[in-house]
Amino acid sequence: MAMRMSSLFLRTLREDPADAEVPSHRLLVRAGYIRRVSPGIYTWLPLGLKVLRRVETIVREEMDAIGSQELLFPALLPKEPYEESGRWTDYGDNIFRLHDRKGAEYLLGPTHEEMFALVVKDLFSSYKDLPLAIYQIQTKYRDEARPRAGILRGREFVMKDSYSFDTSKAGLDKSYQLHRDAYIRIFDRLGFHYVIVNAMAGAMGGSKSEEFLATAENGEDTYVRCPSCGYAANVEAVRVPVPDAVPYAGLPPAHVEDTPDTPTIDTLVDHLNTAFPREDRSWTAADTLKNVVVMLKHPDGTREPLAIGLPGDREVDEKRLGAQVDPAVVEAFDEAEFARNPALTKGYIGPGALGSDHPSGIRYLLDPRVVSGTAWVTGADEPGRHVIGLVAGRDFEGDGVIEAAEVRAGDLCPSCGHELEIARGIEMGHIFQLGTKYAEALGLRVLDESGRLVTVIMGSYGVGVSRAVAAVVEGNHDEAGIIWPRELAPADVHLVATGKDDAVFTFGEELTRELEANGLTVLYDDRRQVSPGVKFKDSELIGVPTIVVVGRGLADGRIEIKDRRSGERREVAVADAVREILAETGHA
Amino acid sequence: MAMRMSSLFLRTLREDPADAEVPSHRLLVRAGYIRRVSPGIYTWLPLGLKVLRRVETIVREEMDAIGSQELLFPALLPKEPYEESGRWTDYGDNIFRLHDRKGAEYLLGPTHEEMFALVVKDLFSSYKDLPLAIYQIQTKYRDEARPRAGILRGREFVMKDSYSFDTSKAGLDKSYQLHRDAYIRIFDRLGFHYVIVNAMAGAMGGSKSEEFLATAENGEDTYVRCPSCGYAANVEAVRVPVPDAVPYAGLPPAHVEDTPDTPTIDTLVDHLNTAFPREDRSWTAADTLKNVVVMLKHPDGTREPLAIGLPGDREVDEKRLGAQVDPAVVEAFDEAEFARNPALTKGYIGPGALGSDHPSGIRYLLDPRVVSGTAWVTGADEPGRHVIGLVAGRDFEGDGVIEAAEVRAGDLCPSCGHELEIARGIEMGHIFQLGTKYAEALGLRVLDESGRLVTVIMGSYGVGVSRAVAAVVEGNHDEAGIIWPRELAPADVHLVATGKDDAVFTFGEELTRELEANGLTVLYDDRRQVSPGVKFKDSELIGVPTIVVVGRGLADGRIEIKDRRSGERREVAVADAVREILAETGHA
Repeated sequence: MAMRMSSLFLRTLREDPADAEVPSHRLLVRAGYIRRVSPGIYTWLPLGLKVLRRVETIVREEMDAIGSQELLFPALLPKEPYEESGRWTDYGDNIFRLHDRKGAEYLLGPTHEEMFALVVKDLFSSYKDLPLAIYQIQTKYRDEARPRAGILRGREFVMKDSYSFDTSKAGLDKSYQLHRDAYIRIFDRLGFHYVIVNAMAGAMGGSKSEEFLATAENGEDTYVRCPSCGYAANVEAVRVPVPDAVPYAGLPPAHVEDTPDTPTIDTLVDHLNTAFPREDRSWTAADTLKNVVVMLKHPDGTREPLAIGLPGDREVDEKRLGAQVDPAVVEAFDEAEFARNPALTKGYIGPGALGSDHPSGIRYLLDPRVVSGTAWVTGADEPGRHVIGLVAGRDFEGDGVIEAAEVRAGDLCPSCGHELEIARGIEMGHIFQLGTKYAEALGLRVLDESGRLVTVIMGSYGVGVSRAVAAVVEGNHDEAGIIWPRELAPADVHLVATGKDDAVFTFGEELTRELEANGLTVLYDDRRQVSPGVKFKDSELIGVPTIVVVGRGLADGRIEIKDRRSGERREVAVADAVREILAETGHA
Repeated sequence: MAMRMSSLFLRTLREDPADAEVPSHRLLVRAGYIRRVSPGIYTWLPLGLKVLRRVETIVREEMDAIGSQELLFPALLPKEPYEESGRWTDYGDNIFRLHDRKGAEYLLGPTHEEMFALVVKDLFSSYKDLPLAIYQIQTKYRDEARPRAGILRGREFVMKDSYSFDTSKAGLDKSYQLHRDAYIRIFDRLGFHYVIVNAMAGAMGGSKSEEFLATAENGEDTYVRCPSCGYAANVEAVRVPVPDAVPYAGLPPAHVEDTPDTPTIDTLVDHLNTAFPREDRSWTAADTLKNVVVMLKHPDGTREPLAIGLPGDREVDEKRLGAQVDPAVVEAFDEAEFARNPALTKGYIGPGALGSDHPSGIRYLLDPRVVSGTAWVTGADEPGRHVIGLVAGRDFEGDGVIEAAEVRAGDLCPSCGHELEIARGIEMGHIFQLGTKYAEALGLRVLDESGRLVTVIMGSYGVGVSRAVAAVVEGNHDEAGIIWPRELAPADVHLVATGKDDAVFTFGEELTRELEANGLTVLYDDRRQVSPGVKFKDSELIGVPTIVVVGRGLADGRIEIKDRRSGERREVAVADAVREILAETGHA
């Protein structure tokens, strides 16, 4: 049935909402698609719900096409399975917890790995039942620290989550590829530009993990790409090309020097170039080894300090560090902590104080660039003193390696060595060889061909469904409003009747009926009291891709068809209207 | 796409689940439609989700047909609007409450009156915008004290809730009638027997309120019906026909008598017939006035005693009393309370102790049958003593009237005086002239034609969508399993291939493809290792209305078509198979 603007539950706004940070948020609220109820929690108004359902339909069709079967889990979930998997604790503050009238504890599901594993355990028991792929499209909950950007990062949101179940790595690879191909079709149909990037594989090192990012300058996710070989990875997953170790035989011994008032890398480099000039080249920040101490808060509430040694010309990247220490979260190492650790000399911390077998006892992880044989200027663990020529592998070692330094444009591609570029995007999908983590925790085993119980191998595949609505707008809008791809638009045609002439509105009704009889959905602006200017503005804001204007020209037997994206207009004869509109909307 | 049983995510069970109390619960679990996650919280397996979606589609089509517009509110709702309406408190233990990481309080929406009122307030402002009807199909939450009967009374469930918005009572009446008609179409299409009964109008006395009950012997709701005039009402809403007051001039004075050891109605009646026999007729329980004291717990936690005086042959009906005192809940008046109220003599409580101006100060409400001029035997507020011939209106009065006595088969119809029948049902829908309660609490006003602000009048209309799946099974099953109405079945045809002959399975595939090409959905039992007996049992359990068996007869060019409901089977020639199946399923 046609939507008539005279009765549609819609109000467009001329002003941007005060809290809108990004175009999609601004436009979806102004055009009457969504309304905020609480931070990160939104109502889908009629037009918005239509778009959301269209996204769901695309996702559902492509999942069904690869034989995945849809089911629906509850959102209100008992604590026990999440305790067995460890995530009740690991999620920390990020999930909503509650209890019922009897005191039993529940959570609002942020993802459903446990439930998927348990339902397969409940129903299936043999290798003959596998492979299996099942999915749901469901409302999920996350108590985000900073809900932002409207529905781009909400606290109640719609996700499609799928899991595959196999008994072999080869089976998992096949399921993974099926889903990867389906995701390419989904994101192609959704009509935005995206990249597929390598992502963190998490605890199951070595398995495949890829993200589908919608390219968007307002995206929260940073990724690198190599213009030469096509390598792409989100910043968390980028692996620094590790230089070869160099022999340190023949390197001069390290020497401690007075470097008064040099608590920062800048002051230190200045001092080095003044007090200890080198003949061949100046000292730079890259010659220094910076030691950063942070505090890790583990899910169980305990805290543990961690020291990171990295070249002085790089900062620690919060996201990269966060991904490495997950599920712990990173907190600042504050003055009180320094007071509690007298072995640390703020501004002059060196490898001499760090590491499990050194005075502080603090775990000490090194950037991969700090290979054996490299020489550094670093803190001497005394105020105003640094050590010069301290050689890794000879004079100090860390407790391990950590990828926590920032990635920069121009860093070398780990795949081909070309210089990397940096760009931003919105995470729209994640496909992931999950392995046996949940199957082991929850006892999901099946009998194999020889009657032995084997642990099932899972793959995990997610699409942000409500987020996609926003991501599409980020990639498809202009100053005037939204420009929907055809497959997502809330209607095929936005028919605008202008003026006060009854004949115009009568014709508008007739045209609406004819277009509907031809299978088109029509948003008909039949408002009598509203000026043409307001109607045109609304049509551009709302963003239906084909706008048909019926107005003064009707007397001469002409109406206008306008393409929202290009702005192109053309007049067509009334007699040809239906045929031309069908052609324009791809229904011919 | 056809569902093939060889790969369908389904396991049927031969045994009833231990916790299943009613047929729908037992059969939906055994046939693999749902699985329990937690009390009152279920997963919809693939077959179940298909049925649920079919119910949703019916509801959606009928709501759209009356011009109601679909939107979608969040389930996670901020406390504030529910505080403004008073329901944050009124709901007591019946809602799930939680708080976010910042301590802000939320609830999981049990119904969304507040949100509907607020979104209309947000978008609309003039009488010209009305009438409006909007609805959602959404997951809702209620922390039921006793979740039971599978999805009949769950804690997470799917509801369609609609609201209408008008500026006049006449407009509300029209909106109400539109929804009533739509509901009749919905419940007709859902394919179960139902009755429309009068229901409690709640705080807005006098407005219309009706429930759609699926007739079911396992129903939780009791209703009365009049076989003569068609009157029907749920027990909460039944109004007792009030007898006319009788003149008490000339009635003898009341007299207190010793009635030792008569703390119950039975012992009292025996004693009366022994010690004070009447010439014309024996004493019966109906001659006595029973005074029951209960404790009300108000939503704010305070407690207040309440006394109810009713004929001794009737019990207090928990549901009727509960509906009258809502949102307070009824608790027992225990021994400690008696100790705290020395004016009450347990077993011998009389009107002399009750009422706001009597010794106990306890509010005293009378059954409508206790009209002025009726004489009663009742407690004399002393152990072992009763008063005989105590006349209402002359010797005692209550603080008011209450409809809390049980309703019995044979009670008189308040509409025509015929004897009422009692039956049980499942509440499937409720339509209700809500009035201005929420609009007033939340300031939902619009400008009328003369530019004055008027409060909007709301109607409220709900359908239990997930509950409907169970209610349909309650009304459509036999010993062997479910019998779906065609419009709800998870498939149009259940095709069963039996035996080991490859030709049978090849033909099964071909027939599946042909039926699908003709628009039918097919559940194809293509399992090779499963006996015909198990397949037939599964087909009866699952309940697709048309079962097609391809087996030994195929060699002679014949297949079998079976009607699940009647059990009738007929053989048809292979050449006619598609045509016959289309006819059988109503697709010819």
